[in-house]
Amino acid sequence: MDGTLVGVVMGSRSDYAVMKAAVEILREFGVPYEAKVVSAHRTPELMVSYAQSAAERGLRVIIAGAGGAAHLPGMIAALTVVPVLGVPVAATGLQGLDSLLSIVQMPKGVPVGTLAIGAAGAANAALLAVAMLATTDDALRAKLTARRAATRDTVLNESLDEVTA
Amino acid sequence: MDGTLVGVVMGSRSDYAVMKAAVEILREFGVPYEAKVVSAHRTPELMVSYAQSAAERGLRVIIAGAGGAAHLPGMIAALTVVPVLGVPVAATGLQGLDSLLSIVQMPKGVPVGTLAIGAAGAANAALLAVAMLATTDDALRAKLTARRAATRDTVLNESLDEVTA
Amino acid sequence: MDGTLVGVVMGSRSDYAVMKAAVEILREFGVPYEAKVVSAHRTPELMVSYAQSAAERGLRVIIAGAGGAAHLPGMIAALTVVPVLGVPVAATGLQGLDSLLSIVQMPKGVPVGTLAIGAAGAANAALLAVAMLATTDDALRAKLTARRAATRDTVLNESLDEVTA
Amino acid sequence: MDGTLVGVVMGSRSDYAVMKAAVEILREFGVPYEAKVVSAHRTPELMVSYAQSAAERGLRVIIAGAGGAAHLPGMIAALTVVPVLGVPVAATGLQGLDSLLSIVQMPKGVPVGTLAIGAAGAANAALLAVAMLATTDDALRAKLTARRAATRDTVLNESLDEVTA
Amino acid sequence: MDGTLVGVVMGSRSDYAVMKAAVEILREFGVPYEAKVVSAHRTPELMVSYAQSAAERGLRVIIAGAGGAAHLPGMIAALTVVPVLGVPVAATGLQGLDSLLSIVQMPKGVPVGTLAIGAAGAANAALLAVAMLATTDDALRAKLTARRAATRDTVLNESLDEVTA
Amino acid sequence: MDGTLVGVVMGSRSDYAVMKAAVEILREFGVPYEAKVVSAHRTPELMVSYAQSAAERGLRVIIAGAGGAAHLPGMIAALTVVPVLGVPVAATGLQGLDSLLSIVQMPKGVPVGTLAIGAAGAANAALLAVAMLATTDDALRAKLTARRAATRDTVLNESLDEVTA
Amino acid sequence: MDGTLVGVVMGSRSDYAVMKAAVEILREFGVPYEAKVVSAHRTPELMVSYAQSAAERGLRVIIAGAGGAAHLPGMIAALTVVPVLGVPVAATGLQGLDSLLSIVQMPKGVPVGTLAIGAAGAANAALLAVAMLATTDDALRAKLTARRAATRDTVLNESLDEVTA
Amino acid sequence: MDGTLVGVVMGSRSDYAVMKAAVEILREFGVPYEAKVVSAHRTPELMVSYAQSAAERGLRVIIAGAGGAAHLPGMIAALTVVPVLGVPVAATGLQGLDSLLSIVQMPKGVPVGTLAIGAAGAANAALLAVAMLATTDDALRAKLTARRAATRDTVLNESLDEVTA
Repeated sequence: MDGTLVGVVMGSRSDYAVMKAAVEILREFGVPYEAKVVSAHRTPELMVSYAQSAAERGLRVIIAGAGGAAHLPGMIAALTVVPVLGVPVAATGLQGLDSLLSIVQMPKGVPVGTLAIGAAGAANAALLAVAMLATTDDALRAKLTARRAATRDTVLNESLDEVTA
Repeated sequence: MDGTLVGVVMGSRSDYAVMKAAVEILREFGVPYEAKVVSAHRTPELMVSYAQSAAERGLRVIIAGAGGAAHLPGMIAALTVVPVLGVPVAATGLQGLDSLLSIVQMPKGVPVGTLAIGAAGAANAALLAVAMLATTDDALRAKLTARRAATRDTVLNESLDEVTA
Repeated sequence: MDGTLVGVVMGSRSDYAVMKAAVEILREFGVPYEAKVVSAHRTPELMVSYAQSAAERGLRVIIAGAGGAAHLPGMIAALTVVPVLGVPVAATGLQGLDSLLSIVQMPKGVPVGTLAIGAAGAANAALLAVAMLATTDDALRAKLTARRAATRDTVLNESLDEVTA
Repeated sequence: MDGTLVGVVMGSRSDYAVMKAAVEILREFGVPYEAKVVSAHRTPELMVSYAQSAAERGLRVIIAGAGGAAHLPGMIAALTVVPVLGVPVAATGLQGLDSLLSIVQMPKGVPVGTLAIGAAGAANAALLAVAMLATTDDALRAKLTARRAATRDTVLNESLDEVTA
Repeated sequence: MDGTLVGVVMGSRSDYAVMKAAVEILREFGVPYEAKVVSAHRTPELMVSYAQSAAERGLRVIIAGAGGAAHLPGMIAALTVVPVLGVPVAATGLQGLDSLLSIVQMPKGVPVGTLAIGAAGAANAALLAVAMLATTDDALRAKLTARRAATRDTVLNESLDEVTA
Repeated sequence: MDGTLVGVVMGSRSDYAVMKAAVEILREFGVPYEAKVVSAHRTPELMVSYAQSAAERGLRVIIAGAGGAAHLPGMIAALTVVPVLGVPVAATGLQGLDSLLSIVQMPKGVPVGTLAIGAAGAANAALLAVAMLATTDDALRAKLTARRAATRDTVLNESLDEVTA
Repeated sequence: MDGTLVGVVMGSRSDYAVMKAAVEILREFGVPYEAKVVSAHRTPELMVSYAQSAAERGLRVIIAGAGGAAHLPGMIAALTVVPVLGVPVAATGLQGLDSLLSIVQMPKGVPVGTLAIGAAGAANAALLAVAMLATTDDALRAKLTARRAATRDTVLNESLDEVTA
Repeated sequence: MDGTLVGVVMGSRSDYAVMKAAVEILREFGVPYEAKVVSAHRTPELMVSYAQSAAERGLRVIIAGAGGAAHLPGMIAALTVVPVLGVPVAATGLQGLDSLLSIVQMPKGVPVGTLAIGAAGAANAALLAVAMLATTDDALRAKLTARRAATRDTVLNESLDEVTA
């Protein structure tokens, strides 16, 4: 795979504690990625240029994480036709419910594929990005399939198997 | 008052059913305003230019209404230092709770003064805009004070006054 | 484009009122699709075979819509590495909040890219599917870009442009 | 009582911290049980075979606990006519509200008897399972009745009985 | 089957619009049942005597439906060891969320197996009751299994099967 | 009973559709009452004087109903030691959840006894007011007890009593 | 004041951590009270006899606190015409929202005056009980009025009074 | 700038932990302010006089923070035409959702511009106050613009810029 394929952006540096779960998956699969802080509210011009150049720079997926009134995923989606996946970060006392609704309830015309709140969602955004790339990359699909099997085997092996005598 | 002082923007044409309550208040007070559809998601470039030119165009307040994943008020606030007031519109089955949280839960540094969901909030955004202008305009303050008194009197006059004999 | 690329499945016949918004987008873009009722709860064996054969049948994306305790998107995602997009349908008095949480809160390892509740989400699932296909199909990307521009122009043209004289 | 009568399954090993409250009740009543990790999302084939063989293996009740987008109880219920009791586990920041709705809001045709979120619900699932078995087992019913009386007496004895002099 | 096996109780006459879905299932399976209005708040003595006599009267399951602050299922469960299934009825503006939480969040020691809000939940309570009786009644289990197959076939037959040419 | 004993106040004329349920109960019991529109937000001075004079005017209970950001009950409670009962009115799209929380979550020191959202709550506020007066009025207590018995008998008589033959 | 006037009951011993705030207020005012554990679910017979004897025992108010599916306040209210005040205790992960709705959403005919979740609500229940007693006890009313003034003075005295030079 | 321009009030001393974020912003900009504890419930007369004298004292904005059933911002807004900004404080187990709804859902006629829950909202209330003052104060607007640029630069500089080699 040539060139950066996946852009991982997040609204603030502190979101990296959550978003690194995405980065780790991308590294595991050897997918070329970049990770940047791009804030819809504090660096809006950067956000616009990042989104508008994404297609020509060859990005195939953008993963955007944000908390509170989370506008980053939806605004990037408004500015590019590159597929955007959104990760709600629990940054306020509302436990991420605010960011979930801010990301998922996009109006008709501008989709954001939204994952679960927090690190599980970040990891899953990366796994979905890999799955998207894998639809035209058999080697990647094989890796993904193998990972699923490994996860299954881990569950099967570590399972408690308690039965009353 | 010279020039347009208040910008009323909304994410879609259908939001006007709610946002006209703001317009009616501005007309009542004779405050020069403009009302436009500016969509964060469907016309992001227009939104950027609208927000970035607001200060130099002399706008003193921007009232922004939007529904669902309501990004318009917060994004405009990110792009100008003109005060922004946000009106959550109930555009989905979640009754406006999604737009309320999308508008009000802004991160530190980029404020949006948020009003109630729906037409009451739209009217109140305009009344708050008038109150802001009135802090340096005695005539406007007098009108606002008179309106309050009139509202009070209406309540007092139309009141039921039921007492058991 | 050869063969069916997008599978649109839904938990019950009545969900089609919502999910047809996805189908209409796919038709608009000329993307080969199939639409089927596949119920996690009432036809679980069909669901398993549908999901397990999806990759070899050449599906590139599966869009799954369901209401209430909406298990269809997540279960299909558990049974295939083809990317799955989930659409919460408002089928109960809880307005789709139950289906949203049932779809989006997937555990680490099995992603579902979740869209907004209802028809807007269904249309957006299809637009996201198109965007995914468009990452390796320049003609499709051009169509998608053109559609965005058309949407923008519609908003710009139908805009109210009310200014006080 | 011959053979395993109650199956206790849970979506992940970590759920055992909650689900052991069910196991403890079953041990207390001497009801033959088995406890296993069976994940709807990570071991779907195991889940299918577990559910489909439950009736012939003589299980009389299945208790299934899961967190987040909790699909295990409902999917097992879709695959067997053995009664299924569901226990929502608080596995995310949403405090188990997501798993509660994912478990309880099943569509007509496939019931899951849902208990409270967390360990109280797990214990109660086991007590309900015991009550179900007790409808045809007088000895078990007597034990259950005795336990209720003991619980009552404990409350009565440990009660504060503060009265102002 | 001799004697009444299933008691269907509800907090008010108006709940019958929802609870008849339970009755219809019980009739379909030929399970002897009784349906009564028993209000925790308006006829508490009747509720106590109903619950306390349930076991000796031979009831094998009690299905209790109630709305708002729904105390009926939990209070009956507190007064008998006969298994109790609860059906939240949407009787207030909170759409049944109040009755769901009032029924499902029972403390450790007194279980109520809770079904979905509304008529789907009422039907499922009856299906779960049938499934419980079926664990010791092979004919009933066969009927239940046949019903599942019929439901599956209905879904399969009425399915749309739309494929692009 | 001499003099007005119960004050029924409400934030706006439109709340009377809900609050008349309180008035009807007070009439039924022959409790001297007054019903007035007193708005915390539109007639704050009236509210202050109403609350501050309540004790000396001999009011024994104040029932206050309000919707949205419902401040009336709590503010009256802050201004008098006469017991205040609050009735949340569903005046916005949030179905009264906003007014419930605005009324019930009072800080330590200033209690408002809060009833259910809507007309049931209004009727119950009046019944609780009657019960409070009845603690020192045996005739009123007898009426209240009789009403309870009548309600019970109505439920018992109109009950469906459906049993399978 | 002769005899116990206020009954403070709670669903479990552990609720005393919250309910002692009520007891402390009653002690402060010298109101004769009793505090007992009375569980709707674990000691239902005790609850029935407690409620049914409350009037003849001379109780003038009952304060009932409970968590989760909190049935105690409403059930006591169903069994006596003595006024009942309810205190939601945060006993589960849902932070008391479950107990609030279980207590406040009572149907027409059986009122529970509900206070805030937790210790503030417990203290306020006692203050409201005192206010109720004070309507026919001038000495108590004077104490209550004095306490209000003292609270006000405390706030006024400890106030920060920060002004920029 | 002469005289106090911004009043920062809060319902209790403990709210200062949150509200000092507002004070810090006002100090940073050199805006003359005062900070006081003014409780709607415990010092209602002070609240009335504070609000009623605000305009003549020359206040240009009032920032009011409160928790739980947060009535302070709305009541002050009812008593003055000086613009009021409200800050919900998370003072109960409901994480500030109760105070948010109590503040934002004001009825038509009495606006409160509401900010995010907690310290971010307090800081933003002050920034919005500064922005309001800046509409007629070029030096202040320049400072505000410079602060925005500085915030942007901080984000740009501290940004992670991780790219796979």
